[in-house]
Amino acid sequence: MPLHPDRYFDPNPTVRDLSRRLYQGVAGLPLVCPHGHVDPKLLADDEPFPDPAALIVVPDHYIFRMLYSRGVSLESLGIPRRDGAPVETNMRKVWQLFADHFYLFRGTPTACWLTHELEDVFGVTQPLDGRSAQAIYDQMLACLERPEFRPRALFERFRIEVLCTTDAATDTLEHHKKIRESGWSGLVLPTFRPDAVVNLENPDWRSEIARLSEVSGITVTSFSRYIQAIEARRVYFKEMGATATDHAFPSPYAAPLSSAEVNGIFDRALAGQTREDDARRFNGHMILELARMSVEDGLVMQIHPGSYRNHNRHIFETFGADKGCDIPTATEYTRNLLPLLNRFGNNPRLRLVLFTLDESTYSRELAPLAGHYPALRLGPPWWFFDSIEGMLRFRRSVTETAGIYNTAGFNDDTRAFCSIPARHDLCRRVDAAWLADLVSRHILDLDDAEAMIADLALNLARETYRL
Amino acid sequence: MPLHPDRYFDPNPTVRDLSRRLYQGVAGLPLVCPHGHVDPKLLADDEPFPDPAALIVVPDHYIFRMLYSRGVSLESLGIPRRDGAPVETNMRKVWQLFADHFYLFRGTPTACWLTHELEDVFGVTQPLDGRSAQAIYDQMLACLERPEFRPRALFERFRIEVLCTTDAATDTLEHHKKIRESGWSGLVLPTFRPDAVVNLENPDWRSEIARLSEVSGITVTSFSRYIQAIEARRVYFKEMGATATDHAFPSPYAAPLSSAEVNGIFDRALAGQTREDDARRFNGHMILELARMSVEDGLVMQIHPGSYRNHNRHIFETFGADKGCDIPTATEYTRNLLPLLNRFGNNPRLRLVLFTLDESTYSRELAPLAGHYPALRLGPPWWFFDSIEGMLRFRRSVTETAGIYNTAGFNDDTRAFCSIPARHDLCRRVDAAWLADLVSRHILDLDDAEAMIADLALNLARETYRL
Amino acid sequence: MPLHPDRYFDPNPTVRDLSRRLYQGVAGLPLVCPHGHVDPKLLADDEPFPDPAALIVVPDHYIFRMLYSRGVSLESLGIPRRDGAPVETNMRKVWQLFADHFYLFRGTPTACWLTHELEDVFGVTQPLDGRSAQAIYDQMLACLERPEFRPRALFERFRIEVLCTTDAATDTLEHHKKIRESGWSGLVLPTFRPDAVVNLENPDWRSEIARLSEVSGITVTSFSRYIQAIEARRVYFKEMGATATDHAFPSPYAAPLSSAEVNGIFDRALAGQTREDDARRFNGHMILELARMSVEDGLVMQIHPGSYRNHNRHIFETFGADKGCDIPTATEYTRNLLPLLNRFGNNPRLRLVLFTLDESTYSRELAPLAGHYPALRLGPPWWFFDSIEGMLRFRRSVTETAGIYNTAGFNDDTRAFCSIPARHDLCRRVDAAWLADLVSRHILDLDDAEAMIADLALNLARETYRL
Repeated sequence: MPLHPDRYFDPNPTVRDLSRRLYQGVAGLPLVCPHGHVDPKLLADDEPFPDPAALIVVPDHYIFRMLYSRGVSLESLGIPRRDGAPVETNMRKVWQLFADHFYLFRGTPTACWLTHELEDVFGVTQPLDGRSAQAIYDQMLACLERPEFRPRALFERFRIEVLCTTDAATDTLEHHKKIRESGWSGLVLPTFRPDAVVNLENPDWRSEIARLSEVSGITVTSFSRYIQAIEARRVYFKEMGATATDHAFPSPYAAPLSSAEVNGIFDRALAGQTREDDARRFNGHMILELARMSVEDGLVMQIHPGSYRNHNRHIFETFGADKGCDIPTATEYTRNLLPLLNRFGNNPRLRLVLFTLDESTYSRELAPLAGHYPALRLGPPWWFFDSIEGMLRFRRSVTETAGIYNTAGFNDDTRAFCSIPARHDLCRRVDAAWLADLVSRHILDLDDAEAMIADLALNLARETYRL
Repeated sequence: MPLHPDRYFDPNPTVRDLSRRLYQGVAGLPLVCPHGHVDPKLLADDEPFPDPAALIVVPDHYIFRMLYSRGVSLESLGIPRRDGAPVETNMRKVWQLFADHFYLFRGTPTACWLTHELEDVFGVTQPLDGRSAQAIYDQMLACLERPEFRPRALFERFRIEVLCTTDAATDTLEHHKKIRESGWSGLVLPTFRPDAVVNLENPDWRSEIARLSEVSGITVTSFSRYIQAIEARRVYFKEMGATATDHAFPSPYAAPLSSAEVNGIFDRALAGQTREDDARRFNGHMILELARMSVEDGLVMQIHPGSYRNHNRHIFETFGADKGCDIPTATEYTRNLLPLLNRFGNNPRLRLVLFTLDESTYSRELAPLAGHYPALRLGPPWWFFDSIEGMLRFRRSVTETAGIYNTAGFNDDTRAFCSIPARHDLCRRVDAAWLADLVSRHILDLDDAEAMIADLALNLARETYRL
Repeated sequence: MPLHPDRYFDPNPTVRDLSRRLYQGVAGLPLVCPHGHVDPKLLADDEPFPDPAALIVVPDHYIFRMLYSRGVSLESLGIPRRDGAPVETNMRKVWQLFADHFYLFRGTPTACWLTHELEDVFGVTQPLDGRSAQAIYDQMLACLERPEFRPRALFERFRIEVLCTTDAATDTLEHHKKIRESGWSGLVLPTFRPDAVVNLENPDWRSEIARLSEVSGITVTSFSRYIQAIEARRVYFKEMGATATDHAFPSPYAAPLSSAEVNGIFDRALAGQTREDDARRFNGHMILELARMSVEDGLVMQIHPGSYRNHNRHIFETFGADKGCDIPTATEYTRNLLPLLNRFGNNPRLRLVLFTLDESTYSRELAPLAGHYPALRLGPPWWFFDSIEGMLRFRRSVTETAGIYNTAGFNDDTRAFCSIPARHDLCRRVDAAWLADLVSRHILDLDDAEAMIADLALNLARETYRL
């Protein structure tokens, strides 16, 4: 269906008119993107996108996950196998298969985003289905060949004020360097994500440590050298413009270890002799070390906990990570974070942004914590909850306890570059709809709501991430 | 109050009109009932129902539970005691007591269903209360004496396309046979529910095993013979038309045991020497065995976990099971189901329908699992959540991640035969209201919503249960 | 913004008109306050309130918690330190700082309550912010000097029918005595809260026991003497008008100990040698003892579990308890309460009112328990959930399973005396809005809704608390 100007607004005329008014105040604001997964190489090289399927289907686990759940094989969608065995390479066929199954996305944010992206970026206004698939493919392909559809041109057209990427601790940030040195004015900043050198369960941990030694110039032979190497990388990331770090701990568990304990665990890990529970205990110690570093260097610390990664072993072994088979688990914050918050929670130099995949913690733990500790902010509804109902549940569960000023504004958190405007637009519309509802019930007055929509759309993200 | 044609629809005129339109497209469709607890004897014998209280009050724990919670004794409601001590036998008195307390159900689905049932089945349009009780009793009694109120006539009047019952593994299915052999055209199918021979905590487990030996013709002297006997019963159930099994494990815990372990547990159980934790470990193994059987024979596997059965010991000892004192517990799916899903979750021959009594798992675990694994479907909101708000919470929590096409359509799950049309009608109305809301906010277009309402009302149930 | 007559009502004209009608039927009813934390000294002495900041900011952790979360120090808000170090004493400055940050409360119940309180109690109609702060301060100060703003005059103006306070087991209730003996007609009743003598983790437990011996006249040298002393205090509280007790167990865990075990734990505690887990096990035993006492003496038993008290150690050490740093934890009821409910849950002499800070338990555990056990009632949404969205979530999650007649009506649960009318009014409006929505969807008829709003506003509280 073509994009309706009042989409996502309540149909009650009073609320709809308020929603419109609030939305129009922020619809044209630039996009601040403090957390996401766009590959910086895209903007460094500025090459044309190859084709619609390679742009939209192959890299997006939100999409192929759903098709897989209804029996479509990942091979037939062109997802590369680890063993190099053949998969579909005819991108027209991949696109057709996607379009044939697009009805599966009815009522999902993926459908909302894609509809917006097709119309707004590519001028496609007819609904995507099996019949329209090839014509839409042709129309998009013709666009992609034009210079104004190159990544940097789109970045500018999207009015992106700043785009933060997510980068391994061992990354040389060569693409970021290339962007800087190109003279192009787009602001693309790295984010320090050291999971691969922190998580002892990572099968490549030792080779990652070797790489850490190499890029930091500090040979990691002990825990203290390891900490020095991490700190050196943070200095480098800051020089390259980073304002934040990101951490995907399985849980927000924090518990300090004695020097002897942490050295022992680290030495065992270096020797390839990690014991049961070492990884969990090491995480509990490292979350505190990383928070200490953030206090010292001012990098905003993000924690994205609670995902059971690669739940489907067959898919992981055949296709690798990030293939739509990470499944959330119940997550506990109140007791787990106690040692961290008692050490640093009152310190205004720490800015800790918490995310969750367990909505039952919004009102029970996260809002009470954020409504008290100066160091805390709540990240926007994450992953499965980056959606219309998900955003409404978040605001309705969190605001009465923590207000909006202990929340971090919006993150698009996406690797799908062309979906960025759709995601921000959806969030701005949902925020407008939420505020309009509060105004219509006389819980807020309109002046307050107008200030709040601007804060939600832009100011909170800028301020939270020290951008 | 008399039934309003727009009941359960949003009063906003736009949304109400859309709701009406969507509802009218499915209001007259037949009823597919893939999971429920109607006694097949009812349709085998086709005898008249005795009286309104015996029809509505005495068998329905949704009803007497609520009266009990406000101090009405089960004896006064005619609920039979195990010890045979006298209980109220004057059904007019039972009905009067129910009517006196009918105000307790204000705002509950029981009130919605009963109001529908009274008007639609019995033509009663005045509200039920203490004053109207006897007149309504008389009116219903007069109906029940007429041939068109016999079970088979009602089955046809209700437009039931297929009714699946729930039957013990040891059931001879004699009532199903009688129905088949009667030449009556109504389709009534059994469902294989082996809980009584799987749950080692069942105090009658050994006599159930004896019975299993008898009906299967396989003397169960070992775990391997036990598996053979269960498989034999499944063959028989399939011959009798079953397309599904059902399992009420306390949790969805799955973990394979070695042959030695499972043989040891089984032999101890046969000897009446079950040890602590044997039952839990046996369940963890059997859930995998039963999934394997479903892969092999194609019976759809339903799991209804998380109920703490017979929480009120006094009521259980005095009146027996299913007396309204089963209480939900927190339920974990992500880790518990990992071994099962890694073994069978990618296998299209498995169809596993998951239910829950823990709504916090909808968005956290169930929708992400169902939105990825081909074998999984989510059952409709169950038991306490088979209600207007419960259905809306389910759809709003699940759809954005899993869509509707990984859900199983509607189950009425009832032993109250005459409430079946009311339950389906309520669900169709709530689905229409939910979809109308999405259309009114331009999240769906009307064409999509019209396809979806038909899928929700009929197609998903048929397809999920291989009917 | 000035108070809107339709505040908190749905803007749909049908629903709004129904809301108005329902609300108007109860707006003028007296206020029944069965649970709260107003200091009885206030009404015993009937002295003028000192100034706006001392009235509104300094005692209210809902308020200073939020300012603290955004970097405002508690010292600058005049919160007294335990060490007597200086804090702000200029109340005009405190008020200014509060007003400067009042925008943080946008969308919170604190903003709703305060706006109501300012207009309805003090006649302030301009919005509170940094510019209006001093003028509003002056206007309120002028009010507070007038006799009609003394506590007893306000009690009468607020139409409080009964106000229950919360009092330690060792309290002499001298203020309650003074009120009684003053000849003033206001009804102020104590509530028995023995936490300080039950919780072995209380660092002052031994001095509290010494005080218990003193006030009860029973020298507590053993567990049996301890039980006698508690029972003696309950007799005294009943004589002074108490109808209820209150208990803040960390969890609702119940498990009886043998005499030897409980005597051992108690003797160790008296000797200052409490071992790990003693406190938890003692709680599990005492919850059963206290329920037994309630069965015997008829005092309604309230349990407020699940708060991790004084989570922020620095704030606790510097400023003491109740400073906005209590954080909820996940709470389990089904298994924890099993021993208590099996012993007393069928006994109509017990009235047990359960509260929660874990909303996931509403539909999963609390409503099913309350919809079955005669002894149980569910307390209103507590603390962080005493809010518009919190109340709606509670009613929508609980009613379909437990109805409204297993809930306890409203508690204002406040120490902020002047906010009492605002809190009751907000609840009555939200109840009206909730019921109007049900009527507009034809789930209830208007007659039923009119009966229900009166029950929610007044009758359920009176009946539940045996007032």
